[in-house]
Amino acid sequence: MPTISQRGHEMPPSPIRKLVPYAEAAKAKGIKVYFLNIGQPDIKTPEIAIKALNNLNMKTIEYSHSAGIASYRKKLVNYYAKNNIHISSDEIMATTGGSEAISFAFLSCFDTGDEVIIPEPFYANYNGFATSGGIKVVPVLSNIENGFALPPISEIEKLITPKTKGIFICNPNNPTGYLYSQQELEQLRDIVKKYDLYLFSDEVYREFCYDGATHFSVMNLEGIENNVIMVDSVSKRYSECGIRIGALITRNKEVFATALKFAQARLSPPTLGQIAAEASLDAPKEYFNEVYDEYINRRNFLVDKLNKIPGVYTPLPKGAFYTTVRLPIDNADEFCKWMLSDFSYQNQTVMMAPATGFYSTPGKGLNEVRIAYILNIEDLAKAVETLEKALEVYPGRKI
Amino acid sequence: MPTISQRGHEMPPSPIRKLVPYAEAAKAKGIKVYFLNIGQPDIKTPEIAIKALNNLNMKTIEYSHSAGIASYRKKLVNYYAKNNIHISSDEIMATTGGSEAISFAFLSCFDTGDEVIIPEPFYANYNGFATSGGIKVVPVLSNIENGFALPPISEIEKLITPKTKGIFICNPNNPTGYLYSQQELEQLRDIVKKYDLYLFSDEVYREFCYDGATHFSVMNLEGIENNVIMVDSVSKRYSECGIRIGALITRNKEVFATALKFAQARLSPPTLGQIAAEASLDAPKEYFNEVYDEYINRRNFLVDKLNKIPGVYTPLPKGAFYTTVRLPIDNADEFCKWMLSDFSYQNQTVMMAPATGFYSTPGKGLNEVRIAYILNIEDLAKAVETLEKALEVYPGRKI
Repeated sequence: MPTISQRGHEMPPSPIRKLVPYAEAAKAKGIKVYFLNIGQPDIKTPEIAIKALNNLNMKTIEYSHSAGIASYRKKLVNYYAKNNIHISSDEIMATTGGSEAISFAFLSCFDTGDEVIIPEPFYANYNGFATSGGIKVVPVLSNIENGFALPPISEIEKLITPKTKGIFICNPNNPTGYLYSQQELEQLRDIVKKYDLYLFSDEVYREFCYDGATHFSVMNLEGIENNVIMVDSVSKRYSECGIRIGALITRNKEVFATALKFAQARLSPPTLGQIAAEASLDAPKEYFNEVYDEYINRRNFLVDKLNKIPGVYTPLPKGAFYTTVRLPIDNADEFCKWMLSDFSYQNQTVMMAPATGFYSTPGKGLNEVRIAYILNIEDLAKAVETLEKALEVYPGRKI
Repeated sequence: MPTISQRGHEMPPSPIRKLVPYAEAAKAKGIKVYFLNIGQPDIKTPEIAIKALNNLNMKTIEYSHSAGIASYRKKLVNYYAKNNIHISSDEIMATTGGSEAISFAFLSCFDTGDEVIIPEPFYANYNGFATSGGIKVVPVLSNIENGFALPPISEIEKLITPKTKGIFICNPNNPTGYLYSQQELEQLRDIVKKYDLYLFSDEVYREFCYDGATHFSVMNLEGIENNVIMVDSVSKRYSECGIRIGALITRNKEVFATALKFAQARLSPPTLGQIAAEASLDAPKEYFNEVYDEYINRRNFLVDKLNKIPGVYTPLPKGAFYTTVRLPIDNADEFCKWMLSDFSYQNQTVMMAPATGFYSTPGKGLNEVRIAYILNIEDLAKAVETLEKALEVYPGRKI
């Protein structure tokens, strides 16, 4: 039997999914599981998107252009302009989810052995795409104590080597909910310019900024126009994760042309998803207002309840719909598994993502979990109550 | 400005698409262009697939399982069984097109510097996925003189080095239409077994076998069950290229588990496409009969007409809907470009794919083009007549 590749061995299993078998077993025992481990919201997709599919009048579902359907890309120009991001349609490439945009960006900019600096904790799949491409992720630690703000630039600068070709951020952040300020981004700009690095920014949670805070895009950082690559996706914005439509956005024509070669190899992004995404751009303002208010209520409720549990702490996230939570436990992987395998309260339990999967420094995140507030408040209330009861009896409790 | 990656530089542009700007220019001049360069058939998608979307009654379009929707994978088991391929649903992974299946297979089995032997001419994008993964394609020449049959096994064996980890075939073949016999496949089996290699087979044209010939799948080669990885797609079978649904199929549990890690990193294949693909499995027999008869007629018409043009030769392909054609020309790239830029007949011209893009040996395929018979006979007739007139006056004509 031939051997598996080394990169296949090194490929990290998904921290969000590795506990799924334990959740399945719990369900099989008749236990109600609250899934707070994954960014799959219960929010409705805009009706206008479903209607576009219901009204689909196509004889042949053809490939689209490798960079996406022209009318969709043109319409995106208006969407971005409304969000104060001024770009043309030939700077926008529709991709198969934000995932593929990351993959194309990495393949276009990095070779095997190149290094990318990412503040940790970070979205675990960045590691997966890096491993696929033989790229080394160099983490820089952000701390729960200061709400997971950007680490001091001096800490980032220390990590730069001749192999460093880029810095990658997620803003607002998954898994912490942190929203980078314009000032923080300008500090990044300066270092990017000084060392002529790429700056990648995953901005898929742009719409979800709270407490009056506004989102500042890396596309508006002056003086590094050719260094910036933005990753986007409609998955969370319109709660249509399954359509798999994202975007790679850059003013760097060489990066765009290179990414297009990778895009042509896979022929086209999904046509049906693009049709739904294009329709979604006309979703009424009320849709967003409702969704936004809902997330605000969930966040406020969740953070308040969590911080009232003895030994538990989470910052108040200013964006996205995740929060990283410190728990009085020995080991987040063991605890999350135990919650599914050995614990239930009123015949219910909770699935969370151990934060260890979001750090690439071994040993970090052992007492943290990521919670996605993607369920309604009634369910969140039961989930938090269950978590509280679990912490009272967990054998590996600390403090 | 930071530099592009080396692999980005090495990434080949799509031979199918690189002439698109010239075609656009011809269209802008009011010339009717027959697009025979791309495998995008004019055949209708089964109505049952469109109806499934028209009847879509979903509140939230969610991620599917990373390996695909369970009901779809189960239904595929029956589909394959009807095609004499007996596998279970946990040996089937739904992917984002056949493209992604190739990509996952390469990443799971090969590391940078590993070698894969592929009979040339071959589907150009194999090269793209190999380049993405730092894998070296080692071509073995198949000849138009014997209809692009499998090269002698001794020729393949000569190319095996300590870096060789697999052999990749496409059956029926794109771009040649060649259908490998059971005997040829058993020869491959023997060498795969002898050197413990992977055997990859792209079988997306399984349904399109002509003249009473039947398709023999690598999944039925005995004694190398753990070496075989099949790539599949519904794109051509149901003329729904745009839904982007394919499959990676293997009995090798370690390969499957490894591919699943890459699949989890990109979250899920498109949900809407899977819904359309699942519905398509119930397309009535008449749908296939009509499509099949149509392709047979097109092939017979095209091959007959082509071989009547002085200096032109193409074998009679036994499968798929492509044929590779030898023309009396100096340079296929120049000729195909000239057809679009400098020639028209009765205000029409033809776009073909220069075969150079399907060979990785430099200088091969210079007098060959790939023609896809994906247009109706009326259009094919006009296209062939136009090609004949073009060859009469092409300045680079040979012979």
